Amino acid sequence: MDGKYNVAVIVGSLRKGSYSRMMARAASKLAPQQLVLSIVEIADLPLYNEDLDATSPPAAWNAFRQAVRKSDALLFVTPEYNRSVPAALKNAIDVGSRPYGQSVFGGKPGAIVSLSPGAIGGFGANHHLRQSLVFLDVPMMQQPEAYIGGAATLFDDAGNLKNDSTKEFLQKYLHAFSIWIGKHASA
Amino acid sequence: MDGKYNVAVIVGSLRKGSYSRMMARAASKLAPQQLVLSIVEIADLPLYNEDLDATSPPAAWNAFRQAVRKSDALLFVTPEYNRSVPAALKNAIDVGSRPYGQSVFGGKPGAIVSLSPGAIGGFGANHHLRQSLVFLDVPMMQQPEAYIGGAATLFDDAGNLKNDSTKEFLQKYLHAFSIWIGKHASA
Amino acid sequence: MDGKYNVAVIVGSLRKGSYSRMMARAASKLAPQQLVLSIVEIADLPLYNEDLDATSPPAAWNAFRQAVRKSDALLFVTPEYNRSVPAALKNAIDVGSRPYGQSVFGGKPGAIVSLSPGAIGGFGANHHLRQSLVFLDVPMMQQPEAYIGGAATLFDDAGNLKNDSTKEFLQKYLHAFSIWIGKHASA
Amino acid sequence: MDGKYNVAVIVGSLRKGSYSRMMARAASKLAPQQLVLSIVEIADLPLYNEDLDATSPPAAWNAFRQAVRKSDALLFVTPEYNRSVPAALKNAIDVGSRPYGQSVFGGKPGAIVSLSPGAIGGFGANHHLRQSLVFLDVPMMQQPEAYIGGAATLFDDAGNLKNDSTKEFLQKYLHAFSIWIGKHASA
Repeated sequence: MDGKYNVAVIVGSLRKGSYSRMMARAASKLAPQQLVLSIVEIADLPLYNEDLDATSPPAAWNAFRQAVRKSDALLFVTPEYNRSVPAALKNAIDVGSRPYGQSVFGGKPGAIVSLSPGAIGGFGANHHLRQSLVFLDVPMMQQPEAYIGGAATLFDDAGNLKNDSTKEFLQKYLHAFSIWIGKHASA
Repeated sequence: MDGKYNVAVIVGSLRKGSYSRMMARAASKLAPQQLVLSIVEIADLPLYNEDLDATSPPAAWNAFRQAVRKSDALLFVTPEYNRSVPAALKNAIDVGSRPYGQSVFGGKPGAIVSLSPGAIGGFGANHHLRQSLVFLDVPMMQQPEAYIGGAATLFDDAGNLKNDSTKEFLQKYLHAFSIWIGKHASA
Repeated sequence: MDGKYNVAVIVGSLRKGSYSRMMARAASKLAPQQLVLSIVEIADLPLYNEDLDATSPPAAWNAFRQAVRKSDALLFVTPEYNRSVPAALKNAIDVGSRPYGQSVFGGKPGAIVSLSPGAIGGFGANHHLRQSLVFLDVPMMQQPEAYIGGAATLFDDAGNLKNDSTKEFLQKYLHAFSIWIGKHASA
Repeated sequence: MDGKYNVAVIVGSLRKGSYSRMMARAASKLAPQQLVLSIVEIADLPLYNEDLDATSPPAAWNAFRQAVRKSDALLFVTPEYNRSVPAALKNAIDVGSRPYGQSVFGGKPGAIVSLSPGAIGGFGANHHLRQSLVFLDVPMMQQPEAYIGGAATLFDDAGNLKNDSTKEFLQKYLHAFSIWIGKHASA
């Protein structure tokens, strides 16, 4: 290993102009040198259905599982849908957690950034996801928490993060995450 | 109206041999006369992506939305995946809740039966779903709660509910639900 | 009955200058005529301990239970402590829920206003309390939800609600609550 | 340091015959050598009220805060009251978290064992407590999870844990916890 950690970034929104995706890209640029962030795509994962695993798991499932398996850590960047985790993100969790006993997440240190156009910053999605990650044995960074409100105002027309205090926060957040990863990633 | 209520039943598991589906079928048989339960299928709903609504919503989304709109009440029967709502069910929630301002769920009285092979009975899925249903303005029956454990032992080989105390519980549950619906369904 | 509903208001903070208490007082003034709001005090309730119920329940417990029993509906107004329900409020819930089988809450329609100095508006407290109220069979108004942020800016020096949009929101909220109560209160 | 970790054990029930207290005592006996478990009492903590901190914090608060501060790690053993954390335990959390900026919990590795007489094993209390511990920056052991059902059947008349599979589970649990503490406790 070259002293770097590969962080699988999972974005909870599928729409093209997603603020979560913009935030994930911003995180990629602002991350400390030892973290290499790459978005793992989840849009093409068929809805999890155990029957498919028993016969022939879809190629997209295999690809997703493989991509996560190769990573050292997990960063979730997500909006909230209906006070909880968006279905697309929950589906990625369900796909990666199976077949039973072969979860690809176990032991990989994790962190979550939730965001919303409104004030609440995706609090509901954030904590529902954390509940799943207890079961999946993902050691979660607790502080700082990241509930980012007013998401629509933070980016310029090209989708770049323009808000300085958010940039600064994100840098601190990713620095803390790199320390958290250092404690937990298998050497 | 003929004094009957049409209840849209949404089953959280997609696999063929699903205990949730067996339970939904049992509920259909054990329901009081004034409730007509029909499963609304969710397996073919593409993952929610707001961009699709802006252009051409998938036919499966339209069909699902239409089916829920025509119903008088909502019954969710679901397992727990990773301590939360299965992706397929959350996807149905997300699809039905949009486009913004056009949710098909609002005001329809609801109830939830969660189940698991283990002891905990899907408690995590049950309450995560309830959190979404606050936002969606679904008045939820509070009691009795239904966390059904040991699901694998309750059915015979043909998939029929054989456990007598579960049958009795389910009957009481559906009777209470019919009263709850009576209070909330629009006349 | 004179066509009025007595609403027991339970305030989650014990400090004198509590924004929740100010909000509860504002609600009392802005409520529609058919609702009579009265704060039921919880500061003096000893921590719930089942052993005390077996011998001699504290007088403060009896008084609280009696006050809630006489009410027609429940309005919770609370801050969030440590991402959940403040201990004082949870204690009132625990005291009122026992002895086993003698809960004073069952069937009374309820609503919750959570607030915080920050942006998130007590979302965590709001939904944790709702989880308890499922068990306690309190039919909860789902919409509108009330997560009130920036609480420190909403009141004047005398503790009166001065923010007009919050006033308007609160009026609508209480109007919706009166309709909700009408559906659920025993005649 | 002598290579041992002092673990503050916080028991969520105040009644004398509490199964949680029995379980805490059993944990104390079954813990690996490097863990020294001591129950920190919470029954006498007055309900948290910020006004008291501003003038003269109760002696019981000071004692509790001091005891937790001296510990290296936190083990919560608790029943569920009304689908959430018992008030007495939430009160200990609130007291230890304040005054603002002086929380005694931050950074101490934690674990939680929830239990119930019924089947569900305190799942609701378990995850509500976890949500608070995110804010308090307590790195939580994720696996194994401990939801212990049928609590009334596990102990003999003297209050000793008699169930062998629970003993074995508890030993594994505490072994995992000692490894978790080793990763997080400040040297």
